Amino acid sequence: MSGAPFGARLDGAFAAHGHLCVGIDPHPYLLAEWGLGRDAAGVRDFGLRVVEAAAGRVGIVKPQVAFFESFGSAGFAVLEDVLAAARAAGLLVIGDAKRGDIGSTNDGYAAAWLTAGSPLEVDALTVTAYTGVGALSGLLDTAEAAGKGAFVLSATSNPEARILQTATTDAGENPGRTVARLVADEVAARNTDRTRLGDHGLVLGATQRLEDYGFTSDAGRTLSTTPVLAPGFGFQGAAFSSIPAVFGQLAPNVVVSVSRSVLALGSASPAGAAGLAEAIERESAALGEVLR
Amino acid sequence: MSGAPFGARLDGAFAAHGHLCVGIDPHPYLLAEWGLGRDAAGVRDFGLRVVEAAAGRVGIVKPQVAFFESFGSAGFAVLEDVLAAARAAGLLVIGDAKRGDIGSTNDGYAAAWLTAGSPLEVDALTVTAYTGVGALSGLLDTAEAAGKGAFVLSATSNPEARILQTATTDAGENPGRTVARLVADEVAARNTDRTRLGDHGLVLGATQRLEDYGFTSDAGRTLSTTPVLAPGFGFQGAAFSSIPAVFGQLAPNVVVSVSRSVLALGSASPAGAAGLAEAIERESAALGEVLR
Repeated sequence: MSGAPFGARLDGAFAAHGHLCVGIDPHPYLLAEWGLGRDAAGVRDFGLRVVEAAAGRVGIVKPQVAFFESFGSAGFAVLEDVLAAARAAGLLVIGDAKRGDIGSTNDGYAAAWLTAGSPLEVDALTVTAYTGVGALSGLLDTAEAAGKGAFVLSATSNPEARILQTATTDAGENPGRTVARLVADEVAARNTDRTRLGDHGLVLGATQRLEDYGFTSDAGRTLSTTPVLAPGFGFQGAAFSSIPAVFGQLAPNVVVSVSRSVLALGSASPAGAAGLAEAIERESAALGEVLR
Repeated sequence: MSGAPFGARLDGAFAAHGHLCVGIDPHPYLLAEWGLGRDAAGVRDFGLRVVEAAAGRVGIVKPQVAFFESFGSAGFAVLEDVLAAARAAGLLVIGDAKRGDIGSTNDGYAAAWLTAGSPLEVDALTVTAYTGVGALSGLLDTAEAAGKGAFVLSATSNPEARILQTATTDAGENPGRTVARLVADEVAARNTDRTRLGDHGLVLGATQRLEDYGFTSDAGRTLSTTPVLAPGFGFQGAAFSSIPAVFGQLAPNVVVSVSRSVLALGSASPAGAAGLAEAIERESAALGEVLR
């Protein structure tokens, strides 16, 4: 499987397990609720338990790197364990790291996350394009060569982002677009040679009206082969039932990410493990009613 | 010193050592040129040698996190050694990590980098505000409470960034600004209670005409207490002599960052150590002719 392009592997995960992605977000308050220590050992235990509950029930997990990074190198060492366990369990892993810099530095991030055999190897990485999608081109090339992908922030789920992401471009080949749409179009341009999903996707928050961010009626065609990672479900307020209205023609491309709403139902006890597994099954079934 | 605000400590570093900042950028090609292995041990040796050459000659160093992250948890473990050595040598340390996410996740990055006693503790961190400066407010608060700061990407030094960073805001209290200026104004608003430098700065590339990014004649007053981190000197093409023209009234606030142009003169030999130290002294003296 790992020799296939990321887009094909993502499509395979959708077909086998549906569109749900379980976040591995060891927030400090969740560690406390689970009865785990606020330290690298606690984060490791948390991450491995989420992997165990997710395996066989969903196709995709998304560790939130910041909550491992909080513990420095010790946190990264346990992240390596969690990534290895997830990959061994056959899960597709999206590293939620939001990395992004200028070109030569992005090569360092590509080496870290998107290179076969690297200690932090994932199947796809979330990245930021404040420095322009062009600055990411080497990273995207490295990812593709390894059968991996990236999800670039476009229209995010937080209200503070709106002014920046709806700003209008004045320069470039096709002025008059929003920042969110500029990023989306440049990522989508890498996916045009595919019949189904390409390797590089967008992060589009499910809590926003995408029209407000420049995703007007033509976006469905432009983005038809572009994967979408959609946070914002559950804790942040979006409901699965809103998916057809929010994503329209893009709905079949969407990775639906849930984190705190299911993680709150776990704990370090056997009952907590069962509760988490049941919550994941329930959410996956509920999502399956909306999106197949 | 570490109890004082970051802005005051930065001002102290300028007074004691001038405005030069030496990047700690263990690019793979530099490791090879220095005769070091392309592994965590090589990166550690590289970083410690740069710290040794910088100590007493400049006030500020800036490790590029991506080149440590390339080696996973082992790379972060050696970064911890390099950070500890730099701080023990009395250097101000700017962690060049370009982190940035939504609010609750940014708290994880603040815990990692901007908290006293954390393994990756630095004096200031570079961050990205694609999700809006508002999403960083908790991180900026955490930094201030610990006598630390942040540098937020505004107008960067790479050509691919231009279309996005010059887009015009349509929403918010003061529409019609560029994205770069929106970010700058929101950061500067946190520094208005200072007579000299505040704690939170901007990354402004020295290779660009800042007027093109919306930094018109009023920017000098708006940003008068805002630190500026300026990459782009040396290898990327900017000359110290351009500082008065590029930065105008902001010149006294500028951290002038050099990396590859001096690092290329080092190596793992005693002669290389001497060559690196001499290059740093020469650059610092040359900068002192332009900026005191």
